Amino acid sequence: MAVPNLSDLRPAAARARFRAGLVTPTSGWCDGWTQANLITVPADRAWDVLLFAQRNPQSCPVLDVLEAGATSGPLLDGAGSGCADGSPGDIRTDLPGYRVYRDGELTEQPTDVLGHWREDLVSFLIGCSFTFERALLAAGVPLRHLERGSNVPMYRTARRCRPAGAPAGPLVVSMRPVPAELVSTAVAVTGRYPSVHGAPVRVGDPEALGITDLDRPDYGDPVPVDGGDVPVFWACGVTPQAAVTESRLPLVIAHEPGHMLVTDARDEDYLIRTA
Amino acid sequence: MAVPNLSDLRPAAARARFRAGLVTPTSGWCDGWTQANLITVPADRAWDVLLFAQRNPQSCPVLDVLEAGATSGPLLDGAGSGCADGSPGDIRTDLPGYRVYRDGELTEQPTDVLGHWREDLVSFLIGCSFTFERALLAAGVPLRHLERGSNVPMYRTARRCRPAGAPAGPLVVSMRPVPAELVSTAVAVTGRYPSVHGAPVRVGDPEALGITDLDRPDYGDPVPVDGGDVPVFWACGVTPQAAVTESRLPLVIAHEPGHMLVTDARDEDYLIRTA
Repeated sequence: MAVPNLSDLRPAAARARFRAGLVTPTSGWCDGWTQANLITVPADRAWDVLLFAQRNPQSCPVLDVLEAGATSGPLLDGAGSGCADGSPGDIRTDLPGYRVYRDGELTEQPTDVLGHWREDLVSFLIGCSFTFERALLAAGVPLRHLERGSNVPMYRTARRCRPAGAPAGPLVVSMRPVPAELVSTAVAVTGRYPSVHGAPVRVGDPEALGITDLDRPDYGDPVPVDGGDVPVFWACGVTPQAAVTESRLPLVIAHEPGHMLVTDARDEDYLIRTA
Repeated sequence: MAVPNLSDLRPAAARARFRAGLVTPTSGWCDGWTQANLITVPADRAWDVLLFAQRNPQSCPVLDVLEAGATSGPLLDGAGSGCADGSPGDIRTDLPGYRVYRDGELTEQPTDVLGHWREDLVSFLIGCSFTFERALLAAGVPLRHLERGSNVPMYRTARRCRPAGAPAGPLVVSMRPVPAELVSTAVAVTGRYPSVHGAPVRVGDPEALGITDLDRPDYGDPVPVDGGDVPVFWACGVTPQAAVTESRLPLVIAHEPGHMLVTDARDEDYLIRTA
Protein backbone atom coordinates (compact mmCIF):
# COMPACT_ATOMS: atom_id res chain seq x y z
CA MET A 1 0.00 0.00 0.00
CA ALA A 2 1.40 3.38 -0.99
CA VAL A 3 2.03 5.77 1.87
CA PRO A 4 0.57 9.17 0.98
CA ASN A 5 2.79 12.20 1.35
CA LEU A 6 2.03 13.92 4.67
CA SER A 7 1.12 17.10 2.81
CA ASP A 8 -1.56 15.19 0.87
CA LEU A 9 -3.26 13.67 3.92
CA ARG A 10 -6.84 14.63 4.70
CA PRO A 11 -7.50 16.10 8.16
CA ALA A 12 -9.43 13.10 9.47
CA ALA A 13 -6.63 10.76 8.39
CA ALA A 14 -4.03 12.91 10.13
CA ARG A 15 -6.15 13.10 13.28
CA ALA A 16 -6.52 9.31 13.26
CA ARG A 17 -2.73 8.92 13.29
CA PHE A 18 -2.35 11.32 16.19
CA ARG A 19 -5.19 9.62 18.03
CA ALA A 20 -3.26 6.38 17.61
CA GLY A 21 -0.31 7.98 19.40
CA LEU A 22 1.96 9.53 16.74
CA VAL A 23 3.84 12.53 18.19
CA THR A 24 5.20 15.03 15.64
CA PRO A 25 5.13 18.71 14.76
CA THR A 26 2.45 19.31 12.13
CA SER A 27 4.06 21.98 9.94
CA GLY A 28 3.75 20.74 6.35
CA TRP A 29 0.93 18.30 7.11
CA CYS A 30 -2.38 18.36 5.21
CA ASP A 31 -1.76 21.02 2.60
CA GLY A 32 -4.51 23.59 2.48
CA TRP A 33 -6.28 22.51 5.67
CA THR A 34 -6.22 24.95 8.55
CA GLN A 35 -4.31 24.09 11.71
CA ALA A 36 -5.23 25.52 15.10
CA ASN A 37 -3.84 26.14 18.56
CA LEU A 38 -5.87 24.74 21.47
CA ILE A 39 -6.44 26.39 24.82
CA THR A 40 -8.93 24.84 27.25
CA VAL A 41 -9.90 26.37 30.61
CA PRO A 42 -12.65 25.99 33.23
CA ALA A 43 -15.83 27.85 32.28
CA ASP A 44 -15.45 30.36 35.12
CA ARG A 45 -12.23 31.61 33.48
CA ALA A 46 -13.53 31.56 29.91
CA TRP A 47 -14.65 35.20 29.86
CA ASP A 48 -11.15 36.38 30.74
CA VAL A 49 -9.59 34.23 28.04
CA LEU A 50 -12.05 35.34 25.36
CA LEU A 51 -11.54 38.97 26.35
CA PHE A 52 -7.77 38.51 26.33
CA ALA A 53 -8.01 37.06 22.83
CA GLN A 54 -10.27 39.88 21.66
CA ARG A 55 -7.78 42.44 22.98
CA ASN A 56 -4.80 40.74 21.37
CA PRO A 57 -6.21 39.66 18.03
CA GLN A 58 -2.93 39.43 16.14
CA SER A 59 -1.51 36.80 18.48
CA CYS A 60 -4.85 35.26 19.56
CA PRO A 61 -7.17 35.11 16.53
CA VAL A 62 -10.15 33.03 17.70
CA LEU A 63 -11.32 30.61 15.01
CA ASP A 64 -13.96 29.01 17.22
CA VAL A 65 -15.08 28.55 20.82
CA LEU A 66 -16.61 25.23 21.88
CA GLU A 67 -19.44 25.17 24.42
CA ALA A 68 -18.58 23.98 27.93
CA GLY A 69 -17.88 20.27 27.85
CA ALA A 70 -17.87 20.06 24.04
CA THR A 71 -15.09 17.97 22.53
CA SER A 72 -15.80 18.69 18.87
CA GLY A 73 -17.32 21.47 16.79
CA PRO A 74 -18.08 22.81 13.33
CA LEU A 75 -14.42 23.11 12.37
CA LEU A 76 -13.93 19.42 13.19
CA ASP A 77 -17.03 17.97 11.59
CA GLY A 78 -15.11 15.69 9.22
CA ALA A 79 -17.09 17.11 6.31
CA GLY A 80 -14.03 18.70 4.79
CA SER A 81 -12.37 15.33 4.46
CA GLY A 82 -14.78 14.01 1.86
CA CYS A 83 -13.67 10.43 2.37
CA ALA A 84 -14.60 7.31 4.27
CA ASP A 85 -12.38 8.17 7.22
CA GLY A 86 -14.00 11.58 7.58
CA SER A 87 -15.11 11.15 11.14
CA PRO A 88 -15.53 14.20 13.41
CA GLY A 89 -12.51 15.28 15.40
CA ASP A 90 -12.15 15.02 19.17
CA ILE A 91 -9.96 17.63 20.81
CA ARG A 92 -9.14 15.28 23.70
CA THR A 93 -7.32 12.75 21.53
CA ASP A 94 -6.66 14.14 18.05
CA LEU A 95 -3.66 16.37 18.65
CA PRO A 96 -0.16 14.91 18.43
CA GLY A 97 0.80 16.34 21.80
CA TYR A 98 -0.67 18.16 24.79
CA ARG A 99 0.44 20.22 27.74
CA VAL A 100 -1.42 20.22 31.04
CA TYR A 101 -0.80 23.08 33.43
CA ARG A 102 -2.01 23.24 37.03
CA ASP A 103 -1.71 26.54 38.90
CA GLY A 104 0.56 27.74 36.12
CA GLU A 105 2.98 24.81 36.36
CA LEU A 106 3.51 22.41 33.45
CA THR A 107 2.64 19.11 35.08
CA GLU A 108 2.23 16.73 32.13
CA GLN A 109 2.82 16.35 28.40
CA PRO A 110 0.44 13.52 27.52
CA THR A 111 -0.67 12.31 24.08
CA ASP A 112 -4.32 12.53 25.05
CA VAL A 113 -6.26 14.32 27.79
CA LEU A 114 -9.16 11.90 28.26
CA GLY A 115 -8.24 11.49 31.93
CA HIS A 116 -8.21 15.26 32.49
CA TRP A 117 -11.53 16.02 30.87
CA ARG A 118 -14.32 17.77 32.77
CA GLU A 119 -17.77 18.92 31.73
CA ASP A 120 -17.04 22.53 32.66
CA LEU A 121 -14.11 22.91 30.24
CA VAL A 122 -14.39 25.53 27.49
CA SER A 123 -12.06 25.19 24.51
CA PHE A 124 -10.73 27.89 22.22
CA LEU A 125 -9.36 27.15 18.76
CA ILE A 126 -6.82 29.85 17.89
CA GLY A 127 -5.39 30.50 14.43
CA CYS A 128 -1.90 29.25 13.58
CA SER A 129 0.74 30.67 11.27
CA PHE A 130 1.13 27.25 9.62
CA THR A 131 -1.99 28.37 7.71
CA PHE A 132 -0.01 30.74 5.54
CA GLU A 133 3.06 28.54 5.11
CA ARG A 134 1.70 26.96 1.93
CA ALA A 135 1.12 30.45 0.51
CA LEU A 136 4.71 31.37 1.42
CA LEU A 137 6.05 28.30 -0.37
CA ALA A 138 3.84 29.02 -3.39
CA ALA A 139 5.32 32.52 -3.52
CA GLY A 140 8.83 31.06 -3.55
CA VAL A 141 9.68 31.79 0.09
CA PRO A 142 11.64 28.81 1.50
CA LEU A 143 10.77 27.51 4.97
CA ARG A 144 13.98 26.51 6.71
CA HIS A 145 12.33 24.54 9.52
CA LEU A 146 10.50 22.40 6.96
CA GLU A 147 13.72 21.81 5.01
CA ARG A 148 15.31 20.55 8.23
CA GLY A 149 12.27 18.54 9.28
CA SER A 150 12.14 20.36 12.61
CA ASN A 151 9.58 22.33 14.58
CA VAL A 152 9.37 26.09 14.08
CA PRO A 153 11.24 28.08 16.78
CA MET A 154 9.09 30.20 19.10
CA TYR A 155 10.15 32.87 21.60
CA ARG A 156 8.61 34.69 24.54
CA THR A 157 9.27 38.37 23.86
CA ALA A 158 9.66 41.40 26.12
CA ARG A 159 6.52 42.88 24.62
CA ARG A 160 3.49 42.59 26.91
CA CYS A 161 -0.01 41.79 25.69
CA ARG A 162 -2.94 43.97 26.63
CA PRO A 163 -4.31 42.26 29.80
CA ALA A 164 -7.91 41.16 30.44
CA GLY A 165 -8.82 40.40 34.03
CA ALA A 166 -6.38 37.77 35.28
CA PRO A 167 -4.68 36.75 32.03
CA ALA A 168 -1.60 38.81 31.27
CA GLY A 169 1.60 37.79 29.61
CA PRO A 170 4.20 38.26 26.91
CA LEU A 171 3.70 38.23 23.17
CA VAL A 172 5.05 34.92 21.83
CA VAL A 173 6.39 34.89 18.27
CA SER A 174 7.41 32.26 15.75
CA MET A 175 10.54 32.89 13.69
CA ARG A 176 11.32 31.96 10.10
CA PRO A 177 14.59 32.91 8.40
CA VAL A 178 13.72 34.54 5.06
CA PRO A 179 16.17 35.41 2.26
CA ALA A 180 16.58 39.19 2.32
CA GLU A 181 15.32 39.62 -1.22
CA LEU A 182 12.09 37.78 -0.34
CA VAL A 183 11.20 39.61 2.88
CA SER A 184 8.78 42.01 1.22
CA THR A 185 7.10 39.07 -0.53
CA ALA A 186 6.75 37.29 2.81
CA VAL A 187 5.20 40.39 4.38
CA ALA A 188 2.75 40.83 1.51
CA VAL A 189 1.69 37.17 1.39
CA THR A 190 1.10 36.81 5.13
CA GLY A 191 -0.60 40.22 5.35
CA ARG A 192 -3.44 38.68 3.37
CA TYR A 193 -4.14 36.32 6.29
CA PRO A 194 -4.95 38.77 9.10
CA SER A 195 -7.09 36.23 10.96
CA VAL A 196 -4.18 33.81 11.35
CA HIS A 197 -1.55 36.27 12.64
CA GLY A 198 -1.14 38.25 9.40
CA ALA A 199 2.00 40.20 8.57
CA PRO A 200 5.15 39.92 10.71
CA VAL A 201 5.36 41.85 13.96
CA ARG A 202 9.08 42.40 13.31
CA VAL A 203 11.67 41.94 10.56
CA GLY A 204 15.22 41.48 11.87
CA ASP A 205 16.64 42.93 15.11
CA PRO A 206 15.48 40.23 17.55
CA GLU A 207 16.88 42.19 20.50
CA ALA A 208 14.20 44.82 19.99
CA LEU A 209 11.76 42.07 20.97
CA GLY A 210 13.93 41.12 23.93
CA ILE A 211 15.17 37.94 22.23
CA THR A 212 18.84 37.62 23.14
CA ASP A 213 19.69 34.20 21.68
CA LEU A 214 17.96 32.87 18.57
CA ASP A 215 19.59 29.48 19.17
CA ARG A 216 17.59 29.02 22.36
CA PRO A 217 13.89 29.21 21.53
CA ASP A 218 11.39 28.93 24.38
CA TYR A 219 9.34 26.44 22.37
CA GLY A 220 10.12 24.33 19.28
CA ASP A 221 13.55 23.76 17.74
CA PRO A 222 16.33 26.23 16.86
CA VAL A 223 16.75 26.95 13.14
CA PRO A 224 20.00 28.61 12.04
CA VAL A 225 19.77 31.98 10.30
CA ASP A 226 22.29 31.64 7.46
CA GLY A 227 24.04 34.53 5.75
CA GLY A 228 21.63 36.19 3.39
CA ASP A 229 18.64 35.25 5.53
CA VAL A 230 16.85 37.68 7.85
CA PRO A 231 14.95 36.45 10.94
CA VAL A 232 11.28 37.34 10.52
CA PHE A 233 8.90 37.16 13.48
CA TRP A 234 5.16 36.50 13.42
CA ALA A 235 2.73 36.65 16.34
CA CYS A 236 2.15 33.12 17.62
CA GLY A 237 -0.87 31.27 18.99
CA VAL A 238 1.18 30.05 21.93
CA THR A 239 0.67 33.56 23.34
CA PRO A 240 -2.56 32.72 25.24
CA GLN A 241 -0.86 29.61 26.63
CA ALA A 242 1.91 31.81 28.06
CA ALA A 243 -0.68 34.20 29.49
CA VAL A 244 -2.94 31.69 31.20
CA THR A 245 0.04 29.91 32.72
CA GLU A 246 1.59 33.16 33.94
CA SER A 247 -1.80 33.90 35.49
CA ARG A 248 -1.68 30.58 37.35
CA LEU A 249 -5.11 29.34 36.30
CA PRO A 250 -6.03 26.18 38.26
CA LEU A 251 -6.21 24.02 35.10
CA VAL A 252 -5.19 24.68 31.52
CA ILE A 253 -5.05 22.13 28.72
CA ALA A 254 -3.22 23.18 25.57
CA HIS A 255 -1.45 21.72 22.57
CA GLU A 256 2.26 21.01 22.62
CA PRO A 257 3.63 24.03 20.69
CA GLY A 258 3.97 23.21 16.98
CA HIS A 259 1.84 20.07 17.45
CA MET A 260 -1.42 21.47 16.18
CA LEU A 261 -5.05 20.47 15.75
CA VAL A 262 -5.69 19.83 12.04
CA THR A 263 -9.19 21.13 11.28
CA ASP A 264 -11.68 20.63 8.46
CA ALA A 265 -11.52 24.34 7.55
CA ARG A 266 -9.66 25.44 4.43
CA ASP A 267 -6.79 27.89 4.50
CA GLU A 268 -8.58 29.92 1.82
CA ASP A 269 -11.36 30.61 4.32
CA TYR A 270 -8.93 32.90 6.14
CA LEU A 271 -7.52 34.63 3.06
CA ILE A 272 -8.60 38.23 2.57
CA ARG A 273 -9.47 38.78 -1.06
CA THR A 274 -9.18 42.32 -2.25
CA ALA A 275 -9.94 43.13 -5.85
CA MET B 1 -17.27 82.38 14.20
CA ALA B 2 -17.15 80.05 11.23
CA VAL B 3 -19.11 76.83 11.63
CA PRO B 4 -16.94 73.92 10.53
CA ASN B 5 -18.34 71.42 8.09
CA LEU B 6 -19.61 68.37 9.98
CA SER B 7 -17.21 66.15 8.06
CA ASP B 8 -14.27 68.25 9.33
CA LEU B 9 -15.22 68.06 13.02
CA ARG B 10 -12.88 66.31 15.42
CA PRO B 11 -14.37 63.43 17.46
CA ALA B 12 -14.27 65.26 20.81
CA ALA B 13 -16.06 68.24 19.29
CA ALA B 14 -18.77 66.02 17.83
CA ARG B 15 -19.16 64.19 21.13
CA ALA B 16 -19.51 67.52 22.93
CA ARG B 17 -22.43 68.45 20.67
CA PHE B 18 -24.18 65.17 21.30
CA ARG B 19 -23.52 65.45 25.02
CA ALA B 20 -25.24 68.82 24.85
CA GLY B 21 -28.33 67.14 23.43
CA LEU B 22 -28.05 67.21 19.62
CA VAL B 23 -29.89 64.22 18.09
CA THR B 24 -28.85 63.29 14.55
CA PRO B 25 -27.62 60.35 12.48
CA THR B 26 -23.82 60.49 12.28
CA SER B 27 -23.18 59.27 8.73
CA GLY B 28 -20.87 61.85 7.13
CA TRP B 29 -19.64 63.24 10.45
CA CYS B 30 -15.95 63.46 11.34
CA ASP B 31 -14.28 62.28 8.15
CA GLY B 32 -11.71 59.59 8.78
CA TRP B 33 -12.62 58.93 12.42
CA THR B 34 -14.11 55.55 13.21
CA GLN B 35 -17.70 55.31 14.37
CA ALA B 36 -18.97 52.46 16.52
CA ASN B 37 -22.12 50.67 17.61
CA LEU B 38 -22.71 50.40 21.36
CA ILE B 39 -24.15 47.43 23.20
CA THR B 40 -24.11 47.40 27.01
CA VAL B 41 -25.30 44.48 29.14
CA PRO B 42 -25.00 43.29 32.75
CA ALA B 43 -21.69 41.50 33.43
CA ASP B 44 -23.40 38.14 33.96
CA ARG B 45 -24.54 38.22 30.30
CA ALA B 46 -21.28 39.56 28.87
CA TRP B 47 -19.82 36.13 28.05
CA ASP B 48 -22.82 35.28 25.87
CA VAL B 49 -22.58 38.58 24.02
CA LEU B 50 -18.85 38.30 23.42
CA LEU B 51 -19.26 34.73 22.22
CA PHE B 52 -22.15 35.75 19.97
CA ALA B 53 -19.95 38.46 18.47
CA GLN B 54 -17.04 36.06 18.01
CA ARG B 55 -19.33 33.63 16.19
CA ASN B 56 -20.80 36.31 13.94
CA PRO B 57 -17.77 38.44 13.14
CA GLN B 58 -19.06 39.96 9.92
CA SER B 59 -22.05 41.57 11.62
CA CYS B 60 -20.50 41.96 15.10
CA PRO B 61 -16.85 42.99 14.71
CA VAL B 62 -15.71 43.86 18.24
CA LEU B 63 -13.51 46.96 18.27
CA ASP B 64 -13.21 47.02 22.06
CA VAL B 65 -14.76 45.77 25.29
CA LEU B 66 -14.85 48.04 28.34
CA GLU B 67 -14.38 46.58 31.82
CA ALA B 68 -17.49 46.32 34.02
CA GLY B 69 -18.57 49.80 35.05
CA ALA B 70 -16.16 51.58 32.70
CA THR B 71 -17.62 54.52 30.79
CA SER B 72 -14.62 55.28 28.60
CA GLY B 73 -11.69 53.43 27.08
CA PRO B 74 -8.67 53.54 24.80
CA LEU B 75 -10.74 54.27 21.69
CA LEU B 76 -12.25 57.31 23.44
CA ASP B 77 -9.14 58.79 25.00
CA GLY B 78 -9.43 62.10 23.19
CA ALA B 79 -5.84 61.77 22.04
CA GLY B 80 -6.88 61.49 18.44
CA SER B 81 -8.48 64.87 18.54
CA GLY B 82 -5.24 66.77 18.98
CA CYS B 83 -7.00 69.95 20.06
CA ALA B 84 -8.07 71.83 23.15
CA ASP B 85 -11.45 70.15 23.29
CA GLY B 86 -9.88 66.70 23.13
CA SER B 87 -11.41 65.38 26.31
CA PRO B 88 -12.05 61.65 26.77
CA GLY B 89 -15.41 60.33 25.69
CA ASP B 90 -18.14 59.03 27.99
CA ILE B 91 -20.39 56.37 26.53
CA ARG B 92 -23.26 57.40 28.84
CA THR B 93 -23.65 60.86 27.33
CA ASP B 94 -21.68 61.18 24.09
CA LEU B 95 -23.92 59.41 21.61
CA PRO B 96 -26.65 61.37 19.82
CA GLY B 97 -29.30 58.83 20.77
CA TYR B 98 -29.80 55.72 22.89
CA ARG B 99 -32.19 52.83 23.19
CA VAL B 100 -32.93 51.15 26.52
CA TYR B 101 -34.46 47.69 26.46
CA ARG B 102 -35.85 45.85 29.47
CA ASP B 103 -36.72 42.16 29.10
CA GLY B 104 -36.44 42.64 25.36
CA GLU B 105 -38.89 45.53 25.17
CA LEU B 106 -37.82 48.96 23.97
CA THR B 107 -38.77 51.11 26.95
CA GLU B 108 -36.96 54.39 26.32
CA GLN B 109 -35.04 56.38 23.70
CA PRO B 110 -33.16 58.91 25.84
CA THR B 111 -30.33 61.26 24.86
CA ASP B 112 -28.18 60.07 27.74
CA VAL B 113 -28.19 57.01 30.02
CA LEU B 114 -26.73 58.51 33.19
CA GLY B 115 -29.83 57.48 35.12
CA HIS B 116 -29.60 53.88 33.89
CA TRP B 117 -25.94 53.35 34.64
CA ARG B 118 -24.80 50.54 36.95
CA GLU B 119 -21.38 49.40 38.05
CA ASP B 120 -21.91 45.91 36.64
CA LEU B 121 -22.49 47.05 33.05
CA VAL B 122 -20.08 45.80 30.38
CA SER B 123 -19.96 47.72 27.11
CA PHE B 124 -19.03 46.48 23.66
CA LEU B 125 -17.96 48.80 20.85
CA ILE B 126 -18.85 47.17 17.55
CA GLY B 127 -17.60 48.25 14.12
CA CYS B 128 -19.86 50.31 11.87
CA SER B 129 -20.11 50.45 8.10
CA PHE B 130 -19.92 54.25 8.21
CA THR B 131 -16.17 53.56 8.54
CA PHE B 132 -15.88 52.66 4.86
CA GLU B 133 -18.25 55.30 3.53
CA ARG B 134 -15.46 57.83 3.04
CA ALA B 135 -13.54 55.22 1.04
CA LEU B 136 -16.64 54.59 -1.08
CA LEU B 137 -17.01 58.30 -1.80
CA ALA B 138 -13.30 58.57 -2.62
CA ALA B 139 -13.73 55.73 -5.13
CA GLY B 140 -16.60 57.60 -6.79
CA VAL B 141 -19.45 55.55 -5.31
CA PRO B 142 -22.31 57.94 -4.43
CA LEU B 143 -24.10 57.52 -1.09
CA ARG B 144 -27.79 58.19 -1.63
CA HIS B 145 -28.68 58.53 2.07
CA LEU B 146 -26.01 61.21 2.49
CA GLU B 147 -27.26 63.06 -0.61
CA ARG B 148 -30.73 63.08 0.97
CA GLY B 149 -29.46 63.94 4.43
CA SER B 150 -31.22 60.91 5.92
CA ASN B 151 -30.25 57.91 8.01
CA VAL B 152 -29.14 54.72 6.24
CA PRO B 153 -31.95 52.13 5.96
CA MET B 154 -31.47 48.90 7.94
CA TYR B 155 -33.43 45.65 7.74
CA ARG B 156 -33.86 42.54 9.87
CA THR B 157 -33.30 39.64 7.46
CA ALA B 158 -34.54 36.07 7.41
CA ARG B 159 -30.99 34.87 7.85
CA ARG B 160 -30.23 33.69 11.39
CA CYS B 161 -27.00 34.34 13.19
CA ARG B 162 -25.05 31.51 14.78
CA PRO B 163 -26.35 31.49 18.39
CA ALA B 164 -24.27 31.63 21.59
CA GLY B 165 -26.00 30.65 24.80
CA ALA B 166 -29.06 32.87 25.12
CA PRO B 167 -28.41 35.45 22.37
CA ALA B 168 -29.89 34.41 19.04
CA GLY B 169 -31.39 36.53 16.35
CA PRO B 170 -31.50 37.64 12.74
CA LEU B 171 -28.74 39.16 10.67
CA VAL B 172 -29.42 42.89 10.33
CA VAL B 173 -28.14 44.63 7.19
CA SER B 174 -27.71 48.20 6.01
CA MET B 175 -28.61 49.00 2.40
CA ARG B 176 -27.04 51.46 0.01
CA PRO B 177 -28.26 51.85 -3.59
CA VAL B 178 -25.20 51.64 -5.87
CA PRO B 179 -25.07 52.45 -9.60
CA ALA B 180 -24.79 49.10 -11.40
CA GLU B 181 -21.50 50.00 -13.05
CA LEU B 182 -19.96 50.76 -9.62
CA VAL B 183 -21.07 47.63 -7.75
CA SER B 184 -17.79 45.80 -8.26
CA THR B 185 -15.91 48.89 -7.08
CA ALA B 186 -18.08 49.03 -3.96
CA VAL B 187 -17.42 45.35 -3.25
CA ALA B 188 -13.66 45.77 -3.70
CA VAL B 189 -13.41 48.91 -1.57
CA THR B 190 -15.43 47.58 1.35
CA GLY B 191 -13.72 44.17 1.18
CA ARG B 192 -10.58 45.92 2.36
CA TYR B 193 -12.33 46.69 5.68
CA PRO B 194 -13.12 43.20 6.98
CA SER B 195 -13.14 44.33 10.61
CA VAL B 196 -15.96 46.81 10.00
CA HIS B 197 -18.36 44.47 8.12
CA GLY B 198 -16.25 44.13 4.95
CA ALA B 199 -17.73 43.24 1.57
CA PRO B 200 -21.51 43.10 1.04
CA VAL B 201 -23.43 40.05 2.18
CA ARG B 202 -25.70 40.43 -0.83
CA VAL B 203 -25.95 42.40 -4.07
CA GLY B 204 -29.50 42.83 -5.36
CA ASP B 205 -32.42 40.41 -4.79
CA PRO B 206 -33.58 41.62 -1.35
CA GLU B 207 -36.20 38.85 -1.18
CA ALA B 208 -33.42 36.29 -0.87
CA LEU B 209 -32.70 37.94 2.47
CA GLY B 210 -36.39 37.91 3.36
CA ILE B 211 -36.75 41.66 2.79
CA THR B 212 -40.11 42.16 1.13
CA ASP B 213 -40.40 45.95 1.08
CA LEU B 214 -37.32 48.16 0.76
CA ASP B 215 -39.50 51.20 1.51
CA ARG B 216 -40.13 49.96 5.03
CA PRO B 217 -36.80 49.53 6.82
CA ASP B 218 -36.81 48.20 10.37
CA TYR B 219 -34.38 50.95 11.44
CA GLY B 220 -33.34 54.23 9.83
CA ASP B 221 -35.00 55.93 6.87
CA PRO B 222 -36.11 54.57 3.51
CA VAL B 223 -33.91 55.53 0.55
CA PRO B 224 -35.36 55.05 -2.95
CA VAL B 225 -33.52 52.73 -5.33
CA ASP B 226 -33.62 54.61 -8.62
CA GLY B 227 -33.36 53.02 -12.05
CA GLY B 228 -29.75 52.15 -12.71
CA ASP B 229 -29.05 51.61 -9.02
CA VAL B 230 -28.81 48.18 -7.40
CA PRO B 231 -29.57 47.68 -3.68
CA VAL B 232 -26.41 46.47 -1.96
CA PHE B 233 -26.55 45.01 1.55
CA TRP B 234 -23.83 45.03 4.19
CA ALA B 235 -23.87 43.27 7.56
CA CYS B 236 -24.83 45.80 10.24
CA GLY B 237 -23.77 46.39 13.83
CA VAL B 238 -27.40 46.59 14.91
CA THR B 239 -27.34 42.77 14.69
CA PRO B 240 -26.28 42.24 18.33
CA GLN B 241 -28.97 44.70 19.43
CA ALA B 242 -31.59 42.58 17.65
CA ALA B 243 -30.16 39.43 19.24
CA VAL B 244 -30.00 40.59 22.83
CA THR B 245 -33.50 42.03 22.62
CA GLU B 246 -34.91 38.86 21.05
CA SER B 247 -33.23 37.01 23.92
CA ARG B 248 -35.07 39.22 26.43
CA LEU B 249 -32.06 40.21 28.47
CA PRO B 250 -33.15 42.06 31.64
CA LEU B 251 -31.35 45.28 30.64
CA VAL B 252 -29.69 46.37 27.42
CA ILE B 253 -28.41 49.84 26.59
CA ALA B 254 -27.58 50.50 22.94
CA HIS B 255 -27.22 53.35 20.48
CA GLU B 256 -30.14 54.56 18.42
CA PRO B 257 -29.42 52.90 15.05
CA GLY B 258 -27.43 55.24 12.78
CA HIS B 259 -26.65 57.50 15.76
CA MET B 260 -23.17 56.25 16.47
CA LEU B 261 -20.35 56.72 18.93
CA VAL B 262 -17.61 58.75 17.24
CA THR B 263 -14.28 57.35 18.45
CA ASP B 264 -10.69 58.59 18.45
CA ALA B 265 -9.61 55.67 16.23
CA ARG B 266 -8.82 56.28 12.58
CA ASP B 267 -10.62 54.52 9.75
CA GLU B 268 -7.23 53.54 8.32
CA ASP B 269 -6.62 51.43 11.42
CA TYR B 270 -9.22 49.01 10.08
CA LEU B 271 -8.00 49.00 6.48
CA ILE B 272 -6.29 45.83 5.35
CA ARG B 273 -3.20 46.69 3.35
CA THR B 274 -2.06 44.05 0.93
CA ALA B 275 0.96 44.68 -1.22
